[in-house]
This record gives sequence, structure tokens and C-alpha cells, in this order.
Amino acid sequence: MEYTAEIISVGTELLLGSIANTDAQMISQGLSALGVNVYYHTVVGDNPGRLREAVNIAKSRSNIIITTGGLGPTYDDLTKQTVCEAFSRPLELHEEEAEALRHYFFDKIHSRHMPESNMQQAMLPVDCTAFHNTCGTAPGCAFEADGVRVVLLPGPPHECREMFEKSAVPYFEKLTAQTIKSHTLRVFGIGESMIDEKLHKQMTTMTNPTIAPYAKVGEVEVRVSAKAESEADAEKLLAPAVAEVRSVLGDNVYGEDVKNLEEVVVALLKEKKLTLSTAESCTGGLVAKRVTDIPGASEVFHGGVVSYVNAVKHVVLSVDSKALDSFGAVSAPVACQMAQGAKLLLHTDISLSTTGLAGPEGDDRGNEVGTVYIALAASEGTWWKKVMCGQGRGRVRTLAAHHALDMVRRYLLGLTMDAEKQE
Amino acid sequence: MEYTAEIISVGTELLLGSIANTDAQMISQGLSALGVNVYYHTVVGDNPGRLREAVNIAKSRSNIIITTGGLGPTYDDLTKQTVCEAFSRPLELHEEEAEALRHYFFDKIHSRHMPESNMQQAMLPVDCTAFHNTCGTAPGCAFEADGVRVVLLPGPPHECREMFEKSAVPYFEKLTAQTIKSHTLRVFGIGESMIDEKLHKQMTTMTNPTIAPYAKVGEVEVRVSAKAESEADAEKLLAPAVAEVRSVLGDNVYGEDVKNLEEVVVALLKEKKLTLSTAESCTGGLVAKRVTDIPGASEVFHGGVVSYVNAVKHVVLSVDSKALDSFGAVSAPVACQMAQGAKLLLHTDISLSTTGLAGPEGDDRGNEVGTVYIALAASEGTWWKKVMCGQGRGRVRTLAAHHALDMVRRYLLGLTMDAEKQE
Repeated sequence: MEYTAEIISVGTELLLGSIANTDAQMISQGLSALGVNVYYHTVVGDNPGRLREAVNIAKSRSNIIITTGGLGPTYDDLTKQTVCEAFSRPLELHEEEAEALRHYFFDKIHSRHMPESNMQQAMLPVDCTAFHNTCGTAPGCAFEADGVRVVLLPGPPHECREMFEKSAVPYFEKLTAQTIKSHTLRVFGIGESMIDEKLHKQMTTMTNPTIAPYAKVGEVEVRVSAKAESEADAEKLLAPAVAEVRSVLGDNVYGEDVKNLEEVVVALLKEKKLTLSTAESCTGGLVAKRVTDIPGASEVFHGGVVSYVNAVKHVVLSVDSKALDSFGAVSAPVACQMAQGAKLLLHTDISLSTTGLAGPEGDDRGNEVGTVYIALAASEGTWWKKVMCGQGRGRVRTLAAHHALDMVRRYLLGLTMDAEKQE
Repeated sequence: MEYTAEIISVGTELLLGSIANTDAQMISQGLSALGVNVYYHTVVGDNPGRLREAVNIAKSRSNIIITTGGLGPTYDDLTKQTVCEAFSRPLELHEEEAEALRHYFFDKIHSRHMPESNMQQAMLPVDCTAFHNTCGTAPGCAFEADGVRVVLLPGPPHECREMFEKSAVPYFEKLTAQTIKSHTLRVFGIGESMIDEKLHKQMTTMTNPTIAPYAKVGEVEVRVSAKAESEADAEKLLAPAVAEVRSVLGDNVYGEDVKNLEEVVVALLKEKKLTLSTAESCTGGLVAKRVTDIPGASEVFHGGVVSYVNAVKHVVLSVDSKALDSFGAVSAPVACQMAQGAKLLLHTDISLSTTGLAGPEGDDRGNEVGTVYIALAASEGTWWKKVMCGQGRGRVRTLAAHHALDMVRRYLLGLTMDAEKQE
């Protein structure tokens, strides 16, 4: 059976242009990977009449309708009611989801009472497959009516993605009897256009598996996907393609099916039984924050110092005033002393420092915005490197943190750090 | 006359999810500022049949139709032909645009030969207003037919934006003579459903201005928007509605037209000429990171300590071992001593601490995941509070940081902190 899908996104904020319709983009990617044709996206506001009309049009031309948004507890969340009316499908209280909601409110959010309006989130279409929301309170669902598969997903992008991947994809896989598997290689230190050049032939000629790069801030994801009748068959198609990408991109590939650099760094520290601390200036706590995003980081991360003003660099991290005066805070000697100071103070095997100019202004020593010095102090000595992190405060800080985390990764794996060893 | 607009974006890459529909977002923002209601976005692929159908549906319900994409020289660029057929409007060679194209090829590409396919870009509907493309070769245009204003814009986002701003906006301004203004109140400490309850009447009955809440992680945005003939008239409509929301939500409103809590906190610190430092355990640097996200934070923020293990709390922040042993790291006395220790060490007027359980595991003292103690040390003493931050490591940390930043805001403004003063 040929499936043609239509995505209806509900939300006045989309029509006002407050946000882009990234939900439809994410779902489209997922459906196209499953071989489902998406022929239309429609966006309507929180208006039952216009939503009803959009659903009627969709019914007449598609056999899969996916809605996003309008499942929340407030009066303008009307997607479920409106769609179910269009399919003459009554709503009933879904006991499991009602219980989950009660649990959420009474056990987890002690300080708030649950407004009555919240319970209507647990009203779901009769005879549906409920999709539990692991990131929010509004459940989604799927049901079949009038020859159409109807799938309702929440609007907030992280909730939508989570529910799409965890619940909707398996639902569609059953429908299409096709499995999609993909592996994602995460790459730092080489840009998207360079990857494009190196993998051009593979990216443009291969159809199953496919290889596609996605640029993120300061790094690139290369996704290798294969379609087959079983997971094992898909994996057989994937293995040589993944090996090929790895051989082309070398040690710039920092992980496969991992979330980020910090996850890799924490895992490596655990494996090598080494501890880490940080001394941050321009990144202002971002490196420590990213390391402690990882559950169980406390096993290997003792802590850090954010030395945002020079006095803190001197008093807390013991950076000598002479170095601060003669070289300035944004310099290799200060970066090295910061790392060494933190290593001593926080008593760790390795310490990582950052000092640079996140902007908007440069300094009075001629350093331009985006200049960052990074140092790593370990038992064998201290290494430093100067990196240029572009422009834009957020971007500079993110890239500086990437560079710092990648430096530890390279140190832990014995790879080249492209850094100077301090004499 | 009331204008209702519909945006039809043409491009298979949108249906495959390769890109998000940022053109529709940008145009929606622009139209809503002009007081034009946008009721639908539709996305169709490069398929004349489905595009024709979408245009017919749009004709029946909107009096402004804006298309993006499909104006280029290649065989699958069919928007102009298809839309003009739907409105029975013939195309003719637009002499000025043809000349511009010849120039482009001769001057920029130094080629005397222009592929024939390119000249069809200069074919425009009879009796249209041509929109010159300053970033690419495909011109856009506007025409009126069957009581509908039809505007055709190119798809590449920079071309689309440039042409929308330079040509389409002036075209619509002439049409409408209306302006939309909105103010956004940012709210912490009260949930979306509670706001819904408190502002239900206003949200459901008011039409100009309108009041609408948008939930973010741990906080809520309430947007008040008004439409009028001039900006000043819109502001006159907005003032009482904004005042009403403020009076209902009280000091939970932390800012108007601001980006976030940290922006408000840094501005207040500057205003009061006070300095801040942090001592973080469960938030692991997130509070410091957020404060230093704000340009110019170094004027008021000295730095912070991330004391992720107990030894660092004791050695660096001088938390006494007795407190750590008898109450545990997640406790009011430890939170207070952390803040006091950081205040002394980093030499600031105020210091803020967080210690809690971000998960996934609780501790052996019966504290469950999500329990966080926050303390604020200042010259007048130290305050602490216990907050429950729900579940999910990221969410707990974000909410804990929100609570900490809100505590400084409340301290700086002399508002109730809902906290205990340490004896």
C-alpha cells in the first residue's frame, strides 16, 4: 500500500512567525526515511473552524494525517477535540494517562495544585494507541478512521521529537513493514564543506545506505541510514558505509551514536580512571556545565573555578600578577597557569582552562574578538593552544568549549592535540 | 477592508525535511506587524497539480496569497506558470527585467551566451508590479486578480527576505495602513495552567488587544498584541492590557520585552552597583554560564566555584566537614555555607549557591531527585530555600538556575524571597 502523508501543525505562534515549523521538518525527515511520501504541510492557528477545514481537506487527499500542537491543558488547545469531531471519534478518559498525570502533579510538583483543565489532557480518542509523553504532560496518540491513520503529537519541539522517535516511528514501521536504521558519526575539527568535498561521491551516488551531513554549531553530524526489511539487514548495509566515513574523516570523528563531546569525555575519564577540573574565564562555566550535564560526572569531575575577573585568577587560581600584567589575561602563560592552579586547588589528574574574548569587544592588547587560549595541565606537563572562534558571543563560547573538550579527548586517547607543550 | 493572507511555499526540499520553512516564518512576522492576519501556511512540492490545487483552495478562503519558491530557471520551477494559470493571467516578457538579466550574464558571468531557460525568468504576469531581485536572478511580482492580491517571491531565504522587505512590505503598507505592536511579559514562579485560570476571561474575550501565554521550560511568556492604524494608537491599546496582566500576575512578572532572567539580574546589579559570585553544586556552572552569557557581565560578576564533590566544598569554599557529615551536601546549612564561602573567597556583595539532586539518582539521606537548596549570602545575612525542580536532569538544572536567579532578582528589588533567613 502506498502511503501519502500530510502534516498539520496547529499554533498561532507559527502564523505570527514567532517560531519556525521545525516539527514539520523533523517529521518529514523521519517519514521520508521510512519511505512515506509527504505531499503537504499545513499550518493553522488555534482556531477550531479553520483546523476542522484543514482536516477535511487533508482527509480527501492523504491517508496519513499527523498533527502537531494544541494538546496542552489550556482553553486554546483544541486539536484533539477538533480532529476527533472531524472523524466522529468520541474521546474517553484514558486511565493510564490519567494516573500518570495525577502522579506527575501530586508526587513530583509538590508545591502546585492541579487545575481541573489538566485532566482533559488524559481524554483520548476511543480505540487509540496512546503515546506517553516523557518530556511533558500532554500524551499523544494514533488511531485509524475512515481509512486514514491519524497521529496526534505535541507541539513543543523537544516533546514532539521525543514522541515521534519513541512512539510514532515504531507505529509507522509496523505499517510499512520497513525498518530504518541509522548511525550518526559526530565530527569536530573539520567543516561541513570540507566533509562535503571528501565524501562528495558517496553522498551523491549512494541511495541505500545514504550518507548525509548536518551542520551544528561548530561541529558536524554525518548520518548514515539504511532501509531494509529487518534491523539485521539494515545493519549489514550500514557497516561498510560507516567504516568508509570513518576512514575518510579519521580522528575528527569523536563518536558514533553519542550525544556530544562531553559524553565521550566523561566516558573516557571513567575508563582511564582519571579526574578533571576546570578553570574558565571566557566560557564562564560552560565547560563545567557541559561536563556535569552528563549523569554520573561526579565520579570524574571534582569541580571548577570561573575566574571572570583578574583578581580571581590571581587569588583563587594563583596566576602570578606578573603574567597578568605583562601578557594580559588572554595569553598562553595565563591559560597555562590557570590550568595548573585549578589542578592543584581542585586536586585532579587533569585540568582544563579557557581564557579569551567572547565579545562584543576586543581587548586593549590587540586581541580580536574570538581569540581564545586553551590549556590542559596533566602530570606530564601543560599544553596550550590558541584558537580563533569566530564572532558572536554565544558562538565563540560554544566553540571554545568544544575545543577545550576535544583537547581532553585527544589527550586521553593519545592523539595529536595540535598544541604547544609549555617549557 | 480586512486582509487575510495565506503563504504557499513550494519546494520538495521542504517536504523532505532538508530545510525548515523559515521563509514562511519571516513573512508571517512581517505581515503580522502590518496588521495582516495570516491564517494558513501550506507547503507543496515541485508538482504543478498539487500546487494548482493548493492555489485553488487558497483563492477560496484568503484575499492575499504569497508564494515562495519555484521562480528559478530550471524545469521544476513552475510556480509562476501554475499560479498564473489558476488566475487565467497570461505571462509576457517584462522588458526591464529581461534587460537586467542580460546585464547580469554579461557583467557578472562574463558570458555573452545566456541559456534560453534563463530568459523565461523575465516572463511576468501581464499588469503586475515587478519586484527586482537584488540577490539573485529570478524577479518576483505582485498582481491583483479575482479580488485576490497575489505576490510571488523567490525561495532561497536571503533572496526571499531581501525582496520581501524591499518590495513586498511597501506594497502591503500601501494596501493596509495598519500596524501591529506587541509586548511580552516574562513570568517565573507560576505555571501556564495557573496563568490560564487567572487570565481566562481576558484571554478568551479580548480581541484587540489579545493576551496569549506561551510555556517555556520552567517559565511562561505572556504576549499582549494590539492592531491599530499607527504605532502610537497600538501602544494606547496595549498599555491598560499590560497593566492588567501585571496586576494579576504581580511580582512573578520579571520583565517586559526582555530575553531572560539573567539579563534582568545583570541589569539590576549594574543599577545597584553590586557584585555577584556563585557557588554551584547540582547546577555545575550553569548559573555562572547564564550570567556570563550577558555582554558586560564582568562589570558585576567576579566569578564562581563549581564544587561538584564534597572535598571542594570543604577545601575551596570552607564548608565545615561537620555540616557535610551531619546534614549531607544537599541541605540548608551546606547551601548557606557555600554561599558565604564564595562571597568571602570571590569578594562580592552577593553570592548565590545551589546544591541538590539533578538525578538520575537520589541520595542516601532520603532526598529525592529534584530536591535543590538555594542560598543567597549578602551583607545583611544569608537566606535559603528548598525548591522541588521536578524530574529529568536537564530540567532540574534549568529550573534550579531559574530559582537561583529569581532569588537574586527578588533580593535586589526588595521583594519577598519566600526563603528562610539563617539565624
